[in-house]
Amino acid sequence: MPFSTGSAAKSDATQERIMAPPDRAEARDEFTLIAELFAPLAASAPEALGLTDDAALYAVRPGHQSILTVDAMVEGVHFLPDDPAEAVARKLLRVNLSDLAAKGAVPKGYLLVTAWQSDTDIGWMRSFAAGLAGDQETYGISLWGGDTVRTPGPPTFTLTAIGEVPEGQMMHRRGAGVGDGIYVTGTIGDAALGLKVLQGSLGDLGAAHRDWLRDRYRLPRPRLAAGQGLREIAHAALDVSDGLMADLGHLCAVSGVGARIEMARLPLSDAARAALARDAGLIGAIAGGGDDYEILFAAPPGRGPDIARVAAETQTPIARIGTILPAAEGVFAVDSDGRPLALKHLGYRHF
Amino acid sequence: MPFSTGSAAKSDATQERIMAPPDRAEARDEFTLIAELFAPLAASAPEALGLTDDAALYAVRPGHQSILTVDAMVEGVHFLPDDPAEAVARKLLRVNLSDLAAKGAVPKGYLLVTAWQSDTDIGWMRSFAAGLAGDQETYGISLWGGDTVRTPGPPTFTLTAIGEVPEGQMMHRRGAGVGDGIYVTGTIGDAALGLKVLQGSLGDLGAAHRDWLRDRYRLPRPRLAAGQGLREIAHAALDVSDGLMADLGHLCAVSGVGARIEMARLPLSDAARAALARDAGLIGAIAGGGDDYEILFAAPPGRGPDIARVAAETQTPIARIGTILPAAEGVFAVDSDGRPLALKHLGYRHF
Repeated sequence: MPFSTGSAAKSDATQERIMAPPDRAEARDEFTLIAELFAPLAASAPEALGLTDDAALYAVRPGHQSILTVDAMVEGVHFLPDDPAEAVARKLLRVNLSDLAAKGAVPKGYLLVTAWQSDTDIGWMRSFAAGLAGDQETYGISLWGGDTVRTPGPPTFTLTAIGEVPEGQMMHRRGAGVGDGIYVTGTIGDAALGLKVLQGSLGDLGAAHRDWLRDRYRLPRPRLAAGQGLREIAHAALDVSDGLMADLGHLCAVSGVGARIEMARLPLSDAARAALARDAGLIGAIAGGGDDYEILFAAPPGRGPDIARVAAETQTPIARIGTILPAAEGVFAVDSDGRPLALKHLGYRHF
Repeated sequence: MPFSTGSAAKSDATQERIMAPPDRAEARDEFTLIAELFAPLAASAPEALGLTDDAALYAVRPGHQSILTVDAMVEGVHFLPDDPAEAVARKLLRVNLSDLAAKGAVPKGYLLVTAWQSDTDIGWMRSFAAGLAGDQETYGISLWGGDTVRTPGPPTFTLTAIGEVPEGQMMHRRGAGVGDGIYVTGTIGDAALGLKVLQGSLGDLGAAHRDWLRDRYRLPRPRLAAGQGLREIAHAALDVSDGLMADLGHLCAVSGVGARIEMARLPLSDAARAALARDAGLIGAIAGGGDDYEILFAAPPGRGPDIARVAAETQTPIARIGTILPAAEGVFAVDSDGRPLALKHLGYRHF
């Protein structure tokens, strides 16, 4: 973990490089990058050991368990080359925090691997680090360690997030029971529409709607407070990243159940409603597109008031959108007249 | 962490893909890869939750702390395109285990991110997984989770390793004291020479020596048993990955000390001795090249017998190679006559 070799290194072999101005290309080696960009992100975390060791040292709180998750983002695949660096960094962090949120975890720290090209602009890197710094404030976490490598390919970032749950209280994907209500936080489909905006579609929407959708694509809001509040209420939970129907399918598969979603109940933003009013065919993108980063969960009948309390206390909209069924009935959506909808090719294909 | 969406997914959206034969290119999506390649690597680890959840769940043993480390490998930068897939996978795992070894940790599990190209050969991927499977047996660890993404660039792999140490017993880089002996496990310089062999140099060495050096480059032997044995003996430790002199510089920098290395004491393999006999200039590669993955540590005077005991009990050669000095004396090496050697540009430059 060569973050470890970072800022304090003063051997003959590295001194010269550390002293060089960081905006000269030849000085942009691992050591300079770590000292300038990453050490400040780790300064307040004892776990990071100042980024001057081989590894991070982490003592989980007594009575708690660790939750570990990792996600990668590749330029041209998971983000666009002209996406702002700050937004790329924050999305990388937040998609991982969203996994923690859906498990009911409190985030603690993260490890970061950056693979940059030799000629990646130092200004871009600084903005990337600034995005992380801002989100560290927002979420109360710190960088604990990582690795910085060079790649001849597209810039690629990998982030491992570490969180904690009280012992035995992680929300699993499995556990949904027949008759459970199906709920989702926030609104669904905005990110999929936001990607369309970034790709030049939806030009007839108003600028405010387009901006809002684009922002939802670029910047997930991990539902950490809601996830922690739902730990003792939900039977099963996951975050919506592949798309509502695909992720519902995952939850149902491991729970051994089916599900019916009432499309009329899908919580939609004003912008998504406006887009849908212009093109009813966008419902496929809304229910099937990815990157929502909302929590989808199943909770037993009768927990409605508790869910409403969590929604109010955490200021998180939560909507009931369907019902868990026996496995034999399958996973499907119905329209406002109760007729099953054909929703083909839903879900983002990663590979 | 889309490993989670893996093998059990049975929604309409994914069923078709999961059912397809895994060696057809169009079927090689994330779900198929996880089910075929990765689920077996996670089968025995409760932490992995069958790779069917959003995150891994990890309960550290009471009285222990977690050690976390991450390293990435990029084709063409950290390994060669024609390196065997099994060896690439094992090196990726082992460089991380080497970090854990140098901290005195017992490895527990790992998270894996693979970024493959759309047309990466499935046979290569299977060999990669087979390499991991073999090393899981060797080191008693399992896959806990990960992510599988597509890249248009060179195949890129990131591995986060998780280990444990008894509370307060991690070996740090800082802590070396003036007068401490400097020790190293195994032999130094083999991997740097092995890389030269792979690049077509050292053709005048015998085939057995060349094979041995190449193997040392491709396949680190993390010194886990020795590291655990040294926890209560060493003042400071790290693994030699950037090169002996560079890593010694890192240890000295954070410890606030200097060091003198006696080059005549460097533990060399028969192959390295043979190479050096043909070309004395190779000493720079030996002391400065990376990828040794041995443990370099400082221990107080008088602990020689304890170190000899650890060496014997763990069947790990350990050699004393120098002495910790006051910081003002710097970090340097001397020849057999005690004359300081000029060792320029030592240490692998990552970026």
